[in-house]
Amino acid sequence: MLRNDKRLIERAEQVVPGGVYGHMSTYLMPDGVPQYYTKSKGTYLWDADGNKYFDCLSAYGPNLLGYGNAQVQDAIRNQLEHCDTMSGPSPLMVDLAEAMVDMIDHANWAMFCKNGTDATSIATTIARAKTGRSKIVVGRGIYHGCLPWSTPSMEGVQPADRMNLIYFDVTDMDSFTDAVRQAGDDLAGVIVTPYRHEVFGDQHFFPQEMAQLIRKSCDEKEAVLILDEVRTGFRLSVGSAWSEHGVQPDISCWGKMLGNGQPISAVLGTDEVKQAASSIYVTGSFWFSAVPMAAAIETLRQVREGSYFKQIMAYGRRLRAGLEDRARAFGFELSQTGPVTMPQILFREDPDFRIAYRFCQLLAQNGVLFSPYHNMFMNAGMTDEAIDGVLETSEKVFAELKDTRGNIPAIPDRVTEKLNKRKPLLGLGQKQKLA
Amino acid sequence: MLRNDKRLIERAEQVVPGGVYGHMSTYLMPDGVPQYYTKSKGTYLWDADGNKYFDCLSAYGPNLLGYGNAQVQDAIRNQLEHCDTMSGPSPLMVDLAEAMVDMIDHANWAMFCKNGTDATSIATTIARAKTGRSKIVVGRGIYHGCLPWSTPSMEGVQPADRMNLIYFDVTDMDSFTDAVRQAGDDLAGVIVTPYRHEVFGDQHFFPQEMAQLIRKSCDEKEAVLILDEVRTGFRLSVGSAWSEHGVQPDISCWGKMLGNGQPISAVLGTDEVKQAASSIYVTGSFWFSAVPMAAAIETLRQVREGSYFKQIMAYGRRLRAGLEDRARAFGFELSQTGPVTMPQILFREDPDFRIAYRFCQLLAQNGVLFSPYHNMFMNAGMTDEAIDGVLETSEKVFAELKDTRGNIPAIPDRVTEKLNKRKPLLGLGQKQKLA
Repeated sequence: MLRNDKRLIERAEQVVPGGVYGHMSTYLMPDGVPQYYTKSKGTYLWDADGNKYFDCLSAYGPNLLGYGNAQVQDAIRNQLEHCDTMSGPSPLMVDLAEAMVDMIDHANWAMFCKNGTDATSIATTIARAKTGRSKIVVGRGIYHGCLPWSTPSMEGVQPADRMNLIYFDVTDMDSFTDAVRQAGDDLAGVIVTPYRHEVFGDQHFFPQEMAQLIRKSCDEKEAVLILDEVRTGFRLSVGSAWSEHGVQPDISCWGKMLGNGQPISAVLGTDEVKQAASSIYVTGSFWFSAVPMAAAIETLRQVREGSYFKQIMAYGRRLRAGLEDRARAFGFELSQTGPVTMPQILFREDPDFRIAYRFCQLLAQNGVLFSPYHNMFMNAGMTDEAIDGVLETSEKVFAELKDTRGNIPAIPDRVTEKLNKRKPLLGLGQKQKLA
Repeated sequence: MLRNDKRLIERAEQVVPGGVYGHMSTYLMPDGVPQYYTKSKGTYLWDADGNKYFDCLSAYGPNLLGYGNAQVQDAIRNQLEHCDTMSGPSPLMVDLAEAMVDMIDHANWAMFCKNGTDATSIATTIARAKTGRSKIVVGRGIYHGCLPWSTPSMEGVQPADRMNLIYFDVTDMDSFTDAVRQAGDDLAGVIVTPYRHEVFGDQHFFPQEMAQLIRKSCDEKEAVLILDEVRTGFRLSVGSAWSEHGVQPDISCWGKMLGNGQPISAVLGTDEVKQAASSIYVTGSFWFSAVPMAAAIETLRQVREGSYFKQIMAYGRRLRAGLEDRARAFGFELSQTGPVTMPQILFREDPDFRIAYRFCQLLAQNGVLFSPYHNMFMNAGMTDEAIDGVLETSEKVFAELKDTRGNIPAIPDRVTEKLNKRKPLLGLGQKQKLA
């Protein structure tokens, strides 16, 4: 069926370790979800066999305004005519830094880089430079990037890579207090995501008291609070996510959506940590390239002036409510958690994920890309009609699920194996569904 | 004079730590070298005040074929119409991996990422995953990227970040043997650049015996040899740089020039380390984006089929010989080291760099961008006529240098301060010119 996709997968296995590595690998996906895409537009993707999909993954975040958003494309094409990667930045770097400082409450400055991982690593280095201390408090199983200090696989990771981290359980405020106590007078900072959005489990919001406790502890210890917004940026609010809790970080990390798909990430911070930020040495061959900055400036303009946030909220609510109704009608109970703009959709009474996997497999066969384990992302390239189409498809799928309920096959062995290996690292097992 | 540039610098200082950070900052440059550029074409840049420059820095490497190379631009524009960052790779990832495996002798596989630093960090992680050991032998003062394990500033860096590194002096083969002995049975790998190309000093080629010794030691210890070609790639040869020594690495790291300015880097490796490479978890939001891969495929096509290498060799020779003659004619002795395609141009009898700084300052005032401390890069967007223009300008500058020889001002205090801070880290002081 996915003949070309299969052929590409076979070719890739010859010349790329594991075929496709990292979060875009379909290794953990149900069979039948395509690995390769050849075209994108709005919220749609086309696979290598010519099939069209409603994509709810949104490039795992970068697609905020819709693939190929007209004004962003114009900004890219226009900038390409002038310059991109040169022996210095273009003035767009200054414009972009000013735009971010204007938009984000706590930000007095910005630094630009390429990966989300660049941003979180720069942030922890600044925290250490600022304080002259070494320990960073970090949530157990929380993903802050793929360097040895945070990657979910322990292959190639040395104890030294993590010896200055102290872990706490993000669902337990006492464990945070313990971690801070443990750091003693060597606490450089705390890094945390605005809410818990790990794979293979429900998403959890942190209570306001948690955010405030973290802020208070950092103040008392004169440590640096780092908010990792790489995944959440501009999908929880048009600004910093913990503003609603009355909490501002000292440093925040941004990526993914900043240029609507163009490669750019950022570190923002307050004046208090600016001197420390200028004391560290970080750089990259493409960090000052002009095209991604032009795309980011236009993306931020639409974020400030456009209706994208109202749209993605509305699409998210429409999808959540519509799926809820339809699941119930066919005798299923969904567990839909997290913000509606970043839906995590699991099934209750699905301890080994087999229903979720079959659900996503059938959806893919009917032109809808969902993830059975990773949170998804709404984008402003969606429409009410497109969401309604997804709901209609889901009805067909729920019907088939109901008819075959006793015979749903187990998830692929490869997934079980991978999960068992990673379970202790992901913090799986506690309040998680996998046995 | 550079009124707009100055205004941009002032604005940036308000919203970016240090204004521009990293290797593209003009902080260490002579006054009068512009910080910002607004247009690029071939080997030319235009600053924010409308001045045009012959750029010998070539974006510090990425500009291999000329800024805005027509076929690369076509590949970018064409791919932009179809797709870029999506929820999975495009088939171009497979094409690109196959192209690299075909081109590079030791490569059986490729992984793509964004920064050179990504590539070197992935390589060391693979070495550790492969061997189950922790120690990496690395040249003292050699730059392998800006993460805490290799960055030239110690601000924010912890002893733990470097506790699994063992340093050797790249000009001393005995010190390499000592380092390997010190690692004992815990040697995971050795990482080394094809030759020594550090700032503020002559470039040094490694003798063939050095390359062979490193290979032999890795074989004996079953450790992984990593060749860091991020800076040198396709400027020493159309292939792997140590092939001329009869030495193949197990893993090589590439970046900068791979997409002629588009953001992409790569790790290549042999079948022996492929399983280890697939066992680690690394990823990035933009690592599978299609546009940089389209640019890389076209760049590699020109590298294989075009005459770029003959061109950059010829331009390099013409520049080196022409400068040599003119310097002599005015009573100066240059120290031109490294490959002609990556010229490092210093002055003999210039212990505090003041002649080099004044030379580059006068060149910049006359429309030629040179670095007084960092190696430069030839690109195929140059022409014989353009090189001759640079030589003509240099004549004027040498004449002025000669006339004012007794009165050349010292280098800016800010440079001296930075250098003194970094001296121990850069390995400065030994065989280096700075007092």
